[in-house]
Amino acid sequence: MKYLSNILGDAVEAFSGLPGVGRKTAMRLVLHLAQQKAEKSKDLARALVVLADDLKTCTNCGAYSDAEVCSICLDSKRDHSTICVVESIRDLLAIEEIQMYKGIYLVLGGLISPIDGIGPENLNINVLFEKLHSNDIREVILAIRPTIEGDTTAYYIYKNLPTSDVKLTMLARGVSFGADLEYADDLTLSRSLLNRTAFQLQDNSNL
Amino acid sequence: MKYLSNILGDAVEAFSGLPGVGRKTAMRLVLHLAQQKAEKSKDLARALVVLADDLKTCTNCGAYSDAEVCSICLDSKRDHSTICVVESIRDLLAIEEIQMYKGIYLVLGGLISPIDGIGPENLNINVLFEKLHSNDIREVILAIRPTIEGDTTAYYIYKNLPTSDVKLTMLARGVSFGADLEYADDLTLSRSLLNRTAFQLQDNSNL
Repeated sequence: MKYLSNILGDAVEAFSGLPGVGRKTAMRLVLHLAQQKAEKSKDLARALVVLADDLKTCTNCGAYSDAEVCSICLDSKRDHSTICVVESIRDLLAIEEIQMYKGIYLVLGGLISPIDGIGPENLNINVLFEKLHSNDIREVILAIRPTIEGDTTAYYIYKNLPTSDVKLTMLARGVSFGADLEYADDLTLSRSLLNRTAFQLQDNSNL
Repeated sequence: MKYLSNILGDAVEAFSGLPGVGRKTAMRLVLHLAQQKAEKSKDLARALVVLADDLKTCTNCGAYSDAEVCSICLDSKRDHSTICVVESIRDLLAIEEIQMYKGIYLVLGGLISPIDGIGPENLNINVLFEKLHSNDIREVILAIRPTIEGDTTAYYIYKNLPTSDVKLTMLARGVSFGADLEYADDLTLSRSLLNRTAFQLQDNSNL
């Protein structure tokens, strides 16, 4: 791809490589910015420098934060006796998005995956176990995706849980809302048949 | 959408609004950058500041340029007697991409569109006409998209051409290569039947 200008080319190179952004998309973004007022590009540049310099990781839960401890961990209205264990900050944001969960989080920072050389010691699992020793935690929710790595990680936590005083739960698995049974995969369908639950009217209000 | 952190939120806001980038995509880009080394965000920030401060518009053709005159206009190997008239720099780049055209360009900066209040005086049409007066131009290629605005603009140029010494041409119109005749629109199909050409073997080498 020819760029006509080194300045354009450098900007295209800097954008491309971001997730979902190839050279064509990058060129589209750069040409768009070039047509806007200079302030628009500089706003983005400023936000990126602040992101690079000032974004912190919450020392308590591992989420991104503006301060040492994140706004969720500092929120006294939230239920600090329930910890939701997630793989990544993206998963945390997805759960926050539904505005239903009122407890706190722990971000593992990945899943156990021997193939990729990621063991429990590379994740925040010990941080979780320390919390269970010292704090007054009543429930740990494993909100980890249902893959081999996810199941391995959940099993490791289950097996090595340092206390039996805590309730360990996991996200419900089954057919998705709105899904066609016809197109559900065999494993999902057979498991949701095996683990069928008593019929109940759905109530989203209490969690 | 809750952002967990003002720094994250500001970066998401700065990204969203770019073409094709909504809040979800912006969050994906920002989380990606937050996970990378700080240098990656700063490289992008630097490229954006340079883009905002230093990108120029070629005084000769209207393309983006690092200097007063762009690399295409400065290239003595190119045919300066042929001008390709395009709507935008994106179209110029699309033509450069096929690496077949060896002449120079003129970027109109838009198309005549009375509904949007864009008249010939808002475009670089006068720049084109001045060139035709003063320079030794033999051919003007109208590489303008086949829409009402494009046709209006092309007709205006044709009607007001200040000299008859120049050959005025336009891009061939017809069914696209690889297109299914069955799915071609009626107008394209009827026009390409009306304007059928003598059978010829395609030769892409000479332009």
